[in-house]
Amino acid sequence: MRYSKLFGKSTRVVSSEIRSRGHEFLIRGGFIRESSAGRFYLLPLGLRVQERICGIIDEEMSALGAQRMLAPVLHPLELWQETKRTESVSFELMRVKDRNTREFVLGGTAEEMMVALVRQFAISEKDLPFCIYQFSTKFRDELRAREFLMKDGYSFHASRDDFEQFYESVKESYFRIFQRMELDAHSVAADNGYMGGDYSHEFIVESPLGESRYLVSEDGAYSAHEDIAAFRRELMNPDEELLPSEVTAAERGISIAAGVEHYKLPAWRQIKSLVFFTEDQEGVLVSLRGDLDVSEAKLMRALGCKQLRLAHEEEVRALGSVVGFVSPLKLKLKKVGDLSLTSVRNFYTGADEWHRDTINVNYGRDFTSDILADIALAADGMASESGSKLRERRGIEVGNIFQLGTWYSEKMAGADFGGSDGLRHPYYMGCYGIGVGRTMATIAEVRSDERGLCWPANVTPFDCHLVSIGKEEEVNAQAEEIYEHLRSEGYSVLYDDRVTSAGIKLADADLIGVRKRVIVSKRLIADSLIEVTSRRDGENIKASRNELCIELERT
Amino acid sequence: MRYSKLFGKSTRVVSSEIRSRGHEFLIRGGFIRESSAGRFYLLPLGLRVQERICGIIDEEMSALGAQRMLAPVLHPLELWQETKRTESVSFELMRVKDRNTREFVLGGTAEEMMVALVRQFAISEKDLPFCIYQFSTKFRDELRAREFLMKDGYSFHASRDDFEQFYESVKESYFRIFQRMELDAHSVAADNGYMGGDYSHEFIVESPLGESRYLVSEDGAYSAHEDIAAFRRELMNPDEELLPSEVTAAERGISIAAGVEHYKLPAWRQIKSLVFFTEDQEGVLVSLRGDLDVSEAKLMRALGCKQLRLAHEEEVRALGSVVGFVSPLKLKLKKVGDLSLTSVRNFYTGADEWHRDTINVNYGRDFTSDILADIALAADGMASESGSKLRERRGIEVGNIFQLGTWYSEKMAGADFGGSDGLRHPYYMGCYGIGVGRTMATIAEVRSDERGLCWPANVTPFDCHLVSIGKEEEVNAQAEEIYEHLRSEGYSVLYDDRVTSAGIKLADADLIGVRKRVIVSKRLIADSLIEVTSRRDGENIKASRNELCIELERT
Repeated sequence: MRYSKLFGKSTRVVSSEIRSRGHEFLIRGGFIRESSAGRFYLLPLGLRVQERICGIIDEEMSALGAQRMLAPVLHPLELWQETKRTESVSFELMRVKDRNTREFVLGGTAEEMMVALVRQFAISEKDLPFCIYQFSTKFRDELRAREFLMKDGYSFHASRDDFEQFYESVKESYFRIFQRMELDAHSVAADNGYMGGDYSHEFIVESPLGESRYLVSEDGAYSAHEDIAAFRRELMNPDEELLPSEVTAAERGISIAAGVEHYKLPAWRQIKSLVFFTEDQEGVLVSLRGDLDVSEAKLMRALGCKQLRLAHEEEVRALGSVVGFVSPLKLKLKKVGDLSLTSVRNFYTGADEWHRDTINVNYGRDFTSDILADIALAADGMASESGSKLRERRGIEVGNIFQLGTWYSEKMAGADFGGSDGLRHPYYMGCYGIGVGRTMATIAEVRSDERGLCWPANVTPFDCHLVSIGKEEEVNAQAEEIYEHLRSEGYSVLYDDRVTSAGIKLADADLIGVRKRVIVSKRLIADSLIEVTSRRDGENIKASRNELCIELERT
Repeated sequence: MRYSKLFGKSTRVVSSEIRSRGHEFLIRGGFIRESSAGRFYLLPLGLRVQERICGIIDEEMSALGAQRMLAPVLHPLELWQETKRTESVSFELMRVKDRNTREFVLGGTAEEMMVALVRQFAISEKDLPFCIYQFSTKFRDELRAREFLMKDGYSFHASRDDFEQFYESVKESYFRIFQRMELDAHSVAADNGYMGGDYSHEFIVESPLGESRYLVSEDGAYSAHEDIAAFRRELMNPDEELLPSEVTAAERGISIAAGVEHYKLPAWRQIKSLVFFTEDQEGVLVSLRGDLDVSEAKLMRALGCKQLRLAHEEEVRALGSVVGFVSPLKLKLKKVGDLSLTSVRNFYTGADEWHRDTINVNYGRDFTSDILADIALAADGMASESGSKLRERRGIEVGNIFQLGTWYSEKMAGADFGGSDGLRHPYYMGCYGIGVGRTMATIAEVRSDERGLCWPANVTPFDCHLVSIGKEEEVNAQAEEIYEHLRSEGYSVLYDDRVTSAGIKLADADLIGVRKRVIVSKRLIADSLIEVTSRRDGENIKASRNELCIELERT
C-alpha cells in the first residue's frame, strides 16, 4: 500500500473527545474516526488490525472445535421476553419496529438467539457437546463504544462435568489468544449479572485507564472482580469481655472519622448503618463495620434486587431515625448485615436520635440481621480468605466467559436434548465473549509510547513500513524496487512514497506503529545498505538487501 | 470437519416458506436457517460459502485499488435529512432511538455515511481519485431478505472523465467477480431511483425466478432494465392521408381488444388514455398507442413524482369523462403522451362520453401533450432504437453500479476537495454494490440439479466431501487416514464419518454439493482404489491414493 494513496492518512486534527493516549493515536494515525458518540468508522488501517485480531481468535476457537456461524443483527423481541431479560438487562436495549410493527432488539448479547436456533434442530445426546460462535456487531447503549465487534461463543453440553471441562479449555484458549497479541490478561472471577448462571471470569489487562477494579492475592491464588471479591473478616478484639449496652450522649459528627475522633477508638468499633431503597421502594437497613464500605453489587445480589438508591435525609427521619445516628437496633425495616458484624465485640452505634449513641452493642445479643452476608467491598491490604494479602488492581476487560447452567434452557421452550434415557433434558450452557474493538483499543493503550503506537507482530497492520528519505531519483528507484521485492516475498508493506520531509515521514511511522521500519536513503545507498528498525525497542540494524528479509523476521 | 460434529446437519424438515429449489436446498443442506421472516442465520456451511464469495470480491476490489473499511451500522438520521433521502427512499427506513433519543437509521445504503466520513478529511485534488468499500449488514424492510451482507463501494473523483474511466473498470471487475463464481451475469442499464445520479447498471443473472425484467437486443448491443428500456416507435401508416376528425356512436366495450373487434382495426389505431393521481393528488391524463402499456417507472420519471395510482371509476366520472372512453382532447388535466402518439395517423379515441368515440384524431392537429416522452414499456419483439429486435429476459440482480455525479457532494456541506485552482469543488461520485447473500442464493439457484446444490470450485464450502461406505474397521481406518492425508496436503475436507447407510450419506453429499466427492469402500480398498466424483457432471474416476490430489485438482 502506498501511503500517498491510503485513505485516512495521519492527521493533526484530533476530536474533542479524546479519552486516552491510545485513543488519540488511533484517531491521529488514521485507524478509526468517530461517527456519532461511541460509534466509529474503522478506516483501512484499523480494519487491517481488526482482521488480524479476528484471525487469531478464529484460529483458537477452531482449535477448540468451535464452529463459526452468524446470527441476524435484529433479534425478535419475543425471544428476550421468553427469558424476561427485557426486564433485567442493565444496558439499555435498543428496540426497532419493522413496517409490520413487529418489534426487534438490536442485540447486545445473543444467548436467546442461539438457543432459538439450536432448538430448531432435534438435538440428541450424541450431538453434544458443541460450541458455535460468531463475530458480530453488538449494540450497548451505555458503553463508551456503543457499537462494536464482538466474538461471542455459546457451548451446549449434556452435563455439568462436560461443561466444566470445556470451560477450563476455553480459559486456556483465551490466555493463548491474548498472549499471541502480547496482552498480559488475567482471569478474574466475576459476577454473572444479567447473563444468568452462577459464575464467570473476566479477562482483564492491567491498566490505570481500566474501568474494572479487581483484587489479586499476593500469593496469586485468588483474583476476583471487586463486585464479588471475598475477604476474611479478622476478629478484631476476640478477647474483650462483652459489656452491657447503654445509651449515652454523643456530641460527635456524622462521619465515621468523627466517631473515631470523638471516642479515640478505631473505625471498626463503630457500626456503619445506611438506609437504601430498592427499585420496588422497599426500604432496607444495611449495617457493617465502620472501617468497611458497602458493595452495591454484593448488596443487590444478597437482596435479589436490580437497583438501589441511598435514602434522603428526610426519608431517614420519616422512618424514625437521623442520618449519622442510624442503628440496627430499632428500625422496623428489612435488615441486611455484613459478615463483619460478628468480628467485633462491644460496637458503638447511633441510637436513632441526634447526638445519642448506644455503646457496647453486640451482634446476636443486642440485634441480628434478616440477612447476614458478604456485602462489603474488598480493598487493598485486606486478607483473602486463605490469608494472603489482597492487592487492588485496575484494568480493561477484554473478554469474559460465563457459566450459564440451565438458566436459558429451562426458560425457553424446547431448549432440550434427547438423552440416552429416552427423556428430554435442558442442555447445560456456557458463553464466551471477546470484545474485538476493545481488544484493539487495549493494545493501542498498553502497547504505545509517547511517540505513537507499537503494534505486536501478530496484529501489526503491515509487516513493514518502508520509508524513502531524500528526493534523489536513485533513492526513489531503490525504494520502489524494494517495495516490489518485499511484496513479491509475501510481506505486506506500507510504503511512504510521499514527497515530504524525513521528519514528517519518521514521525508518522512512529505514530502508526508498524512493527518494522525499513529506511532507504542516499547515504545508505552509498554503502549498499538498508536500515531496519524495530518500532518497539528502537533496535536498529543496517543490512544488505540480501539480509533484509532475515531482519524483518527477527523478533 | 467431521460431518457427525457439524452444527446444522442436513435435515428433512423444511420451513413452510420455501421460495425456490435453491432456497430449499440451502435450508435442507444446513447452510441457512430462518430467524424471523426475511432474516436468516448463516450456519457454518453457509458462512464458509459466504466467506469465499467475500474473498473473491475483496481480491477484485483490491486489484482496482479500492480500500476496505467499515462504517457503523447505525447512521445518524441527520445525515439522511441533509440529502432529503428520508423522503425519497423507496424501501422503508428502519429507525431507532438511543437512550438520549437521538435518532438513527439502520442503513440500507451508505452514501451519506461515507460522505460524512470523507468530509472529515481535508481532501485535495492529489488525494483523488480513491474508492473505499465495506462488507456490511444492510437492512431493507421491503425485500425478501430484509437483512443481508452487502459489499458497497464508493468512489470519489475530481472529474467526470476520471469517474467514467473508473466506472468502466469496475464493470470489468464485476464481470470477473461473477465469472470466478461461475455466474453468467449481464450488465443492464437501469434506473438510478432513490440513489440520485443519472445512470446505473444492474448485473443480472438470468433465471426464471428473477424479479428483474430486462430487454436485450438480438445483436447484443443494447440491454436495459424494463424501467428504462428504449424502443423504436415505427411509423405505422405514414402514407395515409389525414382525415377530418368526427364524433361517432361507438357501441364497443371498454378494452382495447373490444375496440379492435368493433372497428376491425389493429390495436395501434386506438389511443389508450388513463387517469393517474400522484402522491400530491395531482391528476394526470396519460395517453399512448393502444398496443403499448404504460411503464409506471418511466411515467414517474417523466413527471418527477414518487408514487402513482390509477383513478377510480367515480374519479374519472367526476372529471367529466368515463372509463373506456377517456380522450386526450378535452379534459383539463396535465397531459402526458408517449412518443408513440406521433407514429400513427387517424387514431380513434373515446369522446369522454359513454359509447361515443372521436375518429381520425391526429397528434399536433387535434391535440398535444404537456409532456411528450418515452413512458411505454418495451416488450419482446419490439425494435431497439438501432433496429435490432429486443428480447425479454428475467433474472436475479446480484450487483449494481451507479453514477452519482455530484448529487451528494452538492447537497452535503463540506463534501468537496481543494482544486489546483485554489477553490473547493464538489467531488464526482459513484457507488458499487454486490449483494453477497443474494449472490450465494443465486448460485444455489442456477447451480443446482434435482438432487441438490453444485457449488463452483471457487465458492465450494469444502474442497472435498469424504464419504466412507461400510462399517468395516478397515474402511473406517482408511477413511481416517485419507482424511488426515488430505488435510495435511492443505485441502479442506468435509468427512462424513457417521455410522449410517451409504444411501443417506450419498444423498447428503449430493444435497450439500461440495465440488468433489471422495469415496472409500471395502470393494475399492480391495483394489487399492479411491473413487473421486465431480458433483457437477457426475464424472467418476477411480484413483490410487497417490493420484488422489491430482484428481481433486482436475476441473
